[in-house]
Amino acid sequence: MPSEFDLIRRHFSPPATHTLLAGGDDAALLVPTPGHVVAVSTDMLVEGTHFLPGTDPRRLGHKTLAVNLSDLAAMGARPRWAFLAMALPRVDEAWLAAFSAGFLALAAVHRVDLAGGDTTRGPLSLCVTVIGEVMAGHALRRDGAGPGDDVWLSGCTGEAAIGLAALRGTAAFDGIDEARCRERLEQPQPRVGLGLALAGLASAAIDVSDGLAADLGHLANRSACGIDVHWERLPQSSALAGVDRKRRAAAILAGGDDYELAFTASPTNRDAVLAAAREAGVAVTRIGATVAGPPGVRVLDQRGFDMTPARGGFDHFG
Amino acid sequence: MPSEFDLIRRHFSPPATHTLLAGGDDAALLVPTPGHVVAVSTDMLVEGTHFLPGTDPRRLGHKTLAVNLSDLAAMGARPRWAFLAMALPRVDEAWLAAFSAGFLALAAVHRVDLAGGDTTRGPLSLCVTVIGEVMAGHALRRDGAGPGDDVWLSGCTGEAAIGLAALRGTAAFDGIDEARCRERLEQPQPRVGLGLALAGLASAAIDVSDGLAADLGHLANRSACGIDVHWERLPQSSALAGVDRKRRAAAILAGGDDYELAFTASPTNRDAVLAAAREAGVAVTRIGATVAGPPGVRVLDQRGFDMTPARGGFDHFG
Repeated sequence: MPSEFDLIRRHFSPPATHTLLAGGDDAALLVPTPGHVVAVSTDMLVEGTHFLPGTDPRRLGHKTLAVNLSDLAAMGARPRWAFLAMALPRVDEAWLAAFSAGFLALAAVHRVDLAGGDTTRGPLSLCVTVIGEVMAGHALRRDGAGPGDDVWLSGCTGEAAIGLAALRGTAAFDGIDEARCRERLEQPQPRVGLGLALAGLASAAIDVSDGLAADLGHLANRSACGIDVHWERLPQSSALAGVDRKRRAAAILAGGDDYELAFTASPTNRDAVLAAAREAGVAVTRIGATVAGPPGVRVLDQRGFDMTPARGGFDHFG
Repeated sequence: MPSEFDLIRRHFSPPATHTLLAGGDDAALLVPTPGHVVAVSTDMLVEGTHFLPGTDPRRLGHKTLAVNLSDLAAMGARPRWAFLAMALPRVDEAWLAAFSAGFLALAAVHRVDLAGGDTTRGPLSLCVTVIGEVMAGHALRRDGAGPGDDVWLSGCTGEAAIGLAALRGTAAFDGIDEARCRERLEQPQPRVGLGLALAGLASAAIDVSDGLAADLGHLANRSACGIDVHWERLPQSSALAGVDRKRRAAAILAGGDDYELAFTASPTNRDAVLAAAREAGVAVTRIGATVAGPPGVRVLDQRGFDMTPARGGFDHFG
C-alpha cells in the first residue's frame, strides 16, 4: 500500500519539459532565459476565506493556478514554472486526483512546469508561487502610466460577482446566464496571451481581482495620476441582462474575481493595442483615460456625474 | 488609524537592495545573474504541525526563513530573494513586529531581499519561497555521489531533538546543556557559507532536517549507491553528555531539525573540503563513505554491527 507521500508524488509528478531539476532535491533548478528578467508572484488561498468548503476540487485546482497566472499576465511575463505548497487536513486520494487534474490541465495549456512544492498536514490551504520571464524593459508595471494615456479593459467584469451571489443564494436573479457566471467565478481564464502581446506596448497594467474601480485605483496610485472611466463605455455582459442597474454597476465596478487586465497605453498605440488583442483572441475596450492630478478614479455617467463606488479598501483612493 | 494592510506593510517593507521591483505590483521583478542557474525552494509551516502554539514570534520568524535557506545551502546556492505568504487568524501588531524582526534580521545576515508576499486571514500558517543562484554546473544535487566518495557532516546532530524533548517535557534530562539544545531547535543557523564554499567541490549534498540517517538515505537513493557511516566517527555534542547512549544515538541519527549539511566528495578533495569548511567557519567531520550496491544506509558500530534506526519514512531505504 502506498504511503501518503507516494500518493502525493503520484498526483503531482507531471513531466517537466523545461526544468533542469524538478522535485526530489532540496531545491528546483531553473535556467533563466538570457536578456529576460524574472517575474515572481505568490498567493495563499485558504478554505473558508478564498473558497467555500466543499468546492469542487478540479475547479479549485484550476483556479489556484489561474489567479497566479493572472498576476504574471498583468506583468506581460511568460509563465514558466509553478511551485505548490499545500496543507491538507487528511490525504483524500480522490480529492488530490481531481485537484491536480485541474491544476495540471491549466499548467499544460500555458506550458508551465510544476517544478516543486511541499505538502504538510493542516487546515486546507494552498500556496502557489509562479515564476515567469519578460524581456528586460518590457514588463508591464503599475507605475508606468502618464497623463493622457488611454485606459483599456479586457473582456468584461461583473459576471463572477453575480455568480458568487447566485451560488451563495444571497440574491435571486431572473434573466442571468448563471452557468456563464459560475464558469467565470470558478474557471477564470488568465489573460496570459494578451499580457504577452502587450509587453513593451502598454504603459501600465494590473489584473482585476479586487474589483475594477479598486484595481484602477491601485494603478492610479502607483502611477501618480487620475483615471476617468466612462460608465457607458464599460462592456456590459449579456449574461447580466436581467440584473437591475444598481446591482449590475456594483458587480461591474466593485465585484472582484474578474481576472481581466486593465491597462493603459498611449493613444498613438491604439491600433497596435487592437492588433495585440486580436492576436491574443481577447476583446479589449477603451473605457477611459488617465488625467493629470492627484491619484484617484472617477467613474462618470453620461451626465458626467461621479458614480464611483465607495467601499472597503478604496476610500483612500477616492 | 492604520488599516491592517498598512500594519503589515509597515512590518514587512525593508529596503530591497538588489531587486528591480519588490512589492506593490502584480509580481516582483528580479534580475538573474548571467551564467547562473536559479534554485527555488518552498516550504509551508503550520501552527500545531511544525511549531507549537505560543512559539516566540521572533524565533519563529528566524526559523521560518532559516529552514528555507538551509535548502538553498544544500544546493550550494547563494540566497538572493524571499517571498512570504502568511495566513493569520487576526492582526496582532506585537506578534507581527516580533515575527518580522526575526525574519528580517536573518535575511539581512545573508543579504536576502524580501521581494514580495501575500497576507490573508486563516489558521496560522507561513509559506516561504526562497530563490538563490549558483554557477551553472556547480549546484550540489542529491544525485551526484559515486561509490568511494567520502561522506561528510557539518557541525553535529541531535541537539535540536533533545531540545524538543526537553521543551515538551516528554523526558527529563540531567547533564544536558538545555539552553544550547533550545537554541539549536529554535534558532538554527543555515549553513549558507559552507554550501557556497562546497559548490563545484562536493559531489552531492542534502540538508539534514528529517534526521541524519533518513536524509543520507534520500541522498543514497537519488545517487543509487550505499552509504556506510561509522558511529564512532560521528561528532558527539558535549551538550548531550548526560544523555544515555540509546537515546543519544536516536537523537543523533534520527532526531531531525538539525539543518546541518551532509555531503559527499571525492577523497582527492579532502584538503579542499577542509579548507572550504575553514573558510566558512564551520566544523566538518568525515563520517563514512559511499559504497557500490543497492541504495541504503548502514550505521556501523565499532564491532561492525549495523545500528541503523528503523523508523517512519526510512524503511524503504534499509
